[in-house]
Amino acid sequence: MGRPLILVTNDDGYKAPGINLLVELAQKYGDVVMLAPDAPQSAQSNALTVEVPLRVALVEGKENYSCYKTNGKPTDCVKLAIDKILPRRPDFVFSGINHGSNASVNVLYSGTMGAAIEGAIMGIPSIGFSITSHSWGVDFSEAETYIEESIRQVIANGMPKGNCWNINFPEGKIKGLKVCRQSDGQWQKEYVKNTDPQGKEYYWLTGEYKNREPQATDTDIWALDNGYASLVPIRYDMTNSEYLKQLQKNF
Amino acid sequence: MGRPLILVTNDDGYKAPGINLLVELAQKYGDVVMLAPDAPQSAQSNALTVEVPLRVALVEGKENYSCYKTNGKPTDCVKLAIDKILPRRPDFVFSGINHGSNASVNVLYSGTMGAAIEGAIMGIPSIGFSITSHSWGVDFSEAETYIEESIRQVIANGMPKGNCWNINFPEGKIKGLKVCRQSDGQWQKEYVKNTDPQGKEYYWLTGEYKNREPQATDTDIWALDNGYASLVPIRYDMTNSEYLKQLQKNF
Repeated sequence: MGRPLILVTNDDGYKAPGINLLVELAQKYGDVVMLAPDAPQSAQSNALTVEVPLRVALVEGKENYSCYKTNGKPTDCVKLAIDKILPRRPDFVFSGINHGSNASVNVLYSGTMGAAIEGAIMGIPSIGFSITSHSWGVDFSEAETYIEESIRQVIANGMPKGNCWNINFPEGKIKGLKVCRQSDGQWQKEYVKNTDPQGKEYYWLTGEYKNREPQATDTDIWALDNGYASLVPIRYDMTNSEYLKQLQKNF
Repeated sequence: MGRPLILVTNDDGYKAPGINLLVELAQKYGDVVMLAPDAPQSAQSNALTVEVPLRVALVEGKENYSCYKTNGKPTDCVKLAIDKILPRRPDFVFSGINHGSNASVNVLYSGTMGAAIEGAIMGIPSIGFSITSHSWGVDFSEAETYIEESIRQVIANGMPKGNCWNINFPEGKIKGLKVCRQSDGQWQKEYVKNTDPQGKEYYWLTGEYKNREPQATDTDIWALDNGYASLVPIRYDMTNSEYLKQLQKNF
């Protein structure tokens, strides 16, 4: 094919260092359009904006790169770009680089992964990239090699329909990349209860991640905890086929 | 076990007819606590409220039934109820009955299913119920038998960890219930572009569903289109295990 058209989005917003590095790396491989939230939209999952209209503003327009911002969420960005903003259907959707881990069950809460999953639903090879640090000052230099390698792989081999990749990077030195499965775990101790200046109680989200399989060595959490980048192939068909057969006997 | 403790939530808000019918049916089988959004939170997926504090208010409190409302989203409701509101860990999480279909890929956008998936992540047998009509005046009478049958089944047999059920009802006469898989499709023609009274352009979400496998007869969309209720067993492990093996050769 000719020079690919790459849609880039994220959930930290168009000003985040992560997305701007991703644009820089993606430009080596294709024409890039960024359509990203105008403010952070973390933990927005595959949420859609239904109740209010979406606005789109051009931030920067050059021959091979345009940047737009919107009041939408990450999944809105993918839908809106494909339906109304891009000159043609994009060849790839890249989301991130998210400031914060999207390993394990966080794939389900993540706006970054929401965008990549939406790309997959649209039938477009899509990757979500994240690093296990919330700091906007985090050093991405070790991750760059793996981002470029992933882009080259997906350009060379494509991706079977129905899938996207969830790639996470540890901080610091990266030993290599492990293709692995989504680790099982959950969040616990999730809310702090406090009282506002008017004396009214409120709850605020916090929490700690509990790994339910600390012995397993084939998971994304293991890879990240041991200095490796993790790649989990994600499918948006959530059917449990084995359990389906069992249930058909009960109903 | 003793009388089960059942958490009920939804994404249409605590006043919706669907959730109040679900509470009524669930009370036949256990003690019920409702914690639901104070206003509609449709298409909120597994989104979490991170940026603002959550408030909880008691709407109604009786011996075997309490109703609370919150400014949170459906997934917040499940997390907050389990962490801070319920007297003990619930035995079941029931979400819905949603006013609007959550079949096919809508499982990924749905706040109703977001809550059921969160229940599954917490290790609790969970069911999301939806009907294919957005009308608050829809007639649920045909669905009631199947809701009660599902509740009895899950009380009798439980659910393997990592799963929940996505149950959808057609409008009108229901011929039976099919245990089936998530249909493949996508939304298209998703935005209307218009101009506001100040002359500024906006985009607003609409769209039509495109079935990518209209010939298949083992899907939730087929069941609903043909007058059956659909039950899709949903797993929150989104790993594509077969593709994983293939990818391990490339990296």
